Amino acid sequence: MAVRKRRGDMDPEEFRAAGHELIDWIADYRARIPQLPVQAQVKPGEVAGKLPGRAPEQAEPFSRVLADLEAVVVPGVTQVQHPRFFGWFPSNATLASVLGDLATSGLGALGITWQSAPALTEVEEVVVEWLRELTALPEGWKGVIQDTASNGCLVALLAARERATGYSETRGGLQAEPAPLTVYTTEHAHSSIPKAVALAGYGRDNLRFVDVDPVSYAMRPEALAAALAADVAAGRRPAAVVASVGTTGTTAVDPLAQIIPVARQYGMWVHVDAAMAGSALLLPEMRWLVAGVEGADSLAWNPHKWLGTVLDCSLLYVADPEHLIRVMSTSPSYLRSAVDGAVTQYKDWGIPLGRRFRALKLWFHLRLDGAEAIRARLRRDLDNARWLAGQVAATPGWRVLAPVNLQTVVLRHEPAGLVSAAGAVLDAGALNAHTLSWVDAVNTSGAALVTPSLLDGTWAVRVSIGAERTERADVEELWRLLHQAASS
Amino acid sequence: MAVRKRRGDMDPEEFRAAGHELIDWIADYRARIPQLPVQAQVKPGEVAGKLPGRAPEQAEPFSRVLADLEAVVVPGVTQVQHPRFFGWFPSNATLASVLGDLATSGLGALGITWQSAPALTEVEEVVVEWLRELTALPEGWKGVIQDTASNGCLVALLAARERATGYSETRGGLQAEPAPLTVYTTEHAHSSIPKAVALAGYGRDNLRFVDVDPVSYAMRPEALAAALAADVAAGRRPAAVVASVGTTGTTAVDPLAQIIPVARQYGMWVHVDAAMAGSALLLPEMRWLVAGVEGADSLAWNPHKWLGTVLDCSLLYVADPEHLIRVMSTSPSYLRSAVDGAVTQYKDWGIPLGRRFRALKLWFHLRLDGAEAIRARLRRDLDNARWLAGQVAATPGWRVLAPVNLQTVVLRHEPAGLVSAAGAVLDAGALNAHTLSWVDAVNTSGAALVTPSLLDGTWAVRVSIGAERTERADVEELWRLLHQAASS
Repeated sequence: MAVRKRRGDMDPEEFRAAGHELIDWIADYRARIPQLPVQAQVKPGEVAGKLPGRAPEQAEPFSRVLADLEAVVVPGVTQVQHPRFFGWFPSNATLASVLGDLATSGLGALGITWQSAPALTEVEEVVVEWLRELTALPEGWKGVIQDTASNGCLVALLAARERATGYSETRGGLQAEPAPLTVYTTEHAHSSIPKAVALAGYGRDNLRFVDVDPVSYAMRPEALAAALAADVAAGRRPAAVVASVGTTGTTAVDPLAQIIPVARQYGMWVHVDAAMAGSALLLPEMRWLVAGVEGADSLAWNPHKWLGTVLDCSLLYVADPEHLIRVMSTSPSYLRSAVDGAVTQYKDWGIPLGRRFRALKLWFHLRLDGAEAIRARLRRDLDNARWLAGQVAATPGWRVLAPVNLQTVVLRHEPAGLVSAAGAVLDAGALNAHTLSWVDAVNTSGAALVTPSLLDGTWAVRVSIGAERTERADVEELWRLLHQAASS
Repeated sequence: MAVRKRRGDMDPEEFRAAGHELIDWIADYRARIPQLPVQAQVKPGEVAGKLPGRAPEQAEPFSRVLADLEAVVVPGVTQVQHPRFFGWFPSNATLASVLGDLATSGLGALGITWQSAPALTEVEEVVVEWLRELTALPEGWKGVIQDTASNGCLVALLAARERATGYSETRGGLQAEPAPLTVYTTEHAHSSIPKAVALAGYGRDNLRFVDVDPVSYAMRPEALAAALAADVAAGRRPAAVVASVGTTGTTAVDPLAQIIPVARQYGMWVHVDAAMAGSALLLPEMRWLVAGVEGADSLAWNPHKWLGTVLDCSLLYVADPEHLIRVMSTSPSYLRSAVDGAVTQYKDWGIPLGRRFRALKLWFHLRLDGAEAIRARLRRDLDNARWLAGQVAATPGWRVLAPVNLQTVVLRHEPAGLVSAAGAVLDAGALNAHTLSWVDAVNTSGAALVTPSLLDGTWAVRVSIGAERTERADVEELWRLLHQAASS
């Protein structure tokens, strides 16, 4: 293939030509996803082995890069946009939001201060308020876009640490504190929460996994109260509780209305992790999920999951932005301007200084799809989950293992003799081997993808419904595939 | 305008049509940037005031969104892609990398584990190795893409904290440590460094601003040694030094070859912040910047600055990835797979679990522009900076205030009587008023943008050369504009 000699970087006319090609490629790719295997079928090292060891000295033609995108990259990714993707949680990338993200890159704006890109700040302020209103989160709460809920949780736990210590960061730091700060969540909380506890310096010894209800897997408020009383009696200082609304394993819902009053007695920070479930709050009938949330300090949810704003787009809402700013702010001379104090400086609402214009993808998404169609899609998914749970519950040898609060069904196939009629596991080894074997058969077939997950120490299967293109027929086909795999 | 009723989300054919429009819009926009004012000329609240208070219920036509992009957003951003943008640091968004980023969004892949998108991991491994080789960073160092150097520095300081405490995160955390850990940098370090020190829990009392050389503004190794000896004598435990290669204020270069041996005596972590200057390492003649770096533990640089890979794209290289993984790793059941241990799991190399396929924009950028053209552009900018510094130095009443190590010239206009012939400021108040006034005249004119910055307590002016489209004629025009503004 000819190597093109270029004097400088790609210019707008070359971009125009290549851009049209790429848009067509994406439109075609999205249309044919149903024909691709869901799970990537490459071996470790296979993708890297197809790439040269050194960067090219000369510019390559766009056709060659596009050919590699097709031949190397597409087979190398699990197709999470596939209508039979039921793994982890939905990671939708709606085409409306893809356009918004393209506008972001094309503009190439720089978010460091309000002055560097006023629209970057103000469109963000407007769209996070649109979403607050759409989800009926408390009036007066202010939002900011973060990359992930992992970061949102870390920011919340840093804010909690600083509130509990009267801003120890400005003095001797956490290491100078006299009595240990403690944090409370459940063992069903997302892995990012113990990680954030560790990174924020609390130490894992000071993280309490509060007991959960054996049926709902939700935090037991009375167990929280007992844990708090014991820690305070031992001289420790409760700093934060992280309540999950829609856990990863079972979409369990910690009861905010009972947890928050307990936490309030100790002046603790309450962070709500609603990473996936936040999208459900667009539906008035689902707002029971966060009943009592108005007493919380912060809440994270990811439009880049079920809602479908392309990665990465996570919202962090806080009741008191002034506190967050006090923990996070910096003001070097080269970033000061005459409008400081009159405008929002999002650099002081999180860890990074430089910020991408992420609000555009939310803005495009909401405007080009409209709230009504988004709500209809979310309701479709909830209905599909209820349908599947009904099928499972009505079928001998199958069991639904957790309440279906949202769009995820946790299920198991139970061959005769491995589980008692009451649901007690009689032979965990054989049951686990059976489960992992049939799940593997489904996933490696490429026809659908589901996620195995440990529940009460035994492997279960999560079916997370909510890919943008998943219709009832896809869920019916999945149910047929599960049957087939488990009984073969 | 007609409201379009839509049953569901935007489909591939609607995307195709709108995508072509948007590509054309971006190509046209990029071509006409030279005609736009550099600094955004909107007032606080002006952008937000043009947007409705609530999200639309019904889908809007793409034409309306595109019209708002043009009418509301473009005037609301400072044009950092403008050829006469000389502010902060270059924030280039090369069109080749914009295509890569579009591919990322169009694919909509999800990076949580290797299994979720093997190509996302392996293309990243390959391109960070390409860039390691292009920059001649030490063989064996491994890289990972982060959003910003702010996060990279925080990750490094968390890794340093855990190494110094033998993994206190797994026990009682930083709060259980007996003697305070200390961190060393200079007052010229980027604002993200004191912020990371605070967030990591060290406390600002334990951050030392080591003295700098009065001419070069670089850290004095003997001052570092003295500070370390004093802290150790007082029972403190030195944990990390953050050396800057190319400070924000003056592009000062802390001497790694002298600093690292001192730090090594205390077993400290050495993090190198080369956020902007890393790009210069593509040029063999500039590798003196990091002489001695092979003894460091980590280094961050941002391809999203001068190199021109669109925001956000920051590289963190580490000498010992196993340590990083030990600090950051999690392994919940729903993320495990048969290949664990045989593959790289980038979730354990930083804070976020979910990761965007950022490697594609680097891959496209390097392939579509080629290393040779990128190096030519970087050399053009260095040459332009030397030219401007020569003009300033040769012109009575003007002074270059710091060594021109890179592409930034720090300068001042000094009216008669305000500064002595030897450079001593005689009337700081009058000099500051003069400087801020003429800088404001340049910036508000929209013809060019430069950044005022405090240096030795007095306002100076940074001219940071390196926007992708900045040619010598633009620098000549800037010099004319500075003259005009300062003498009017």
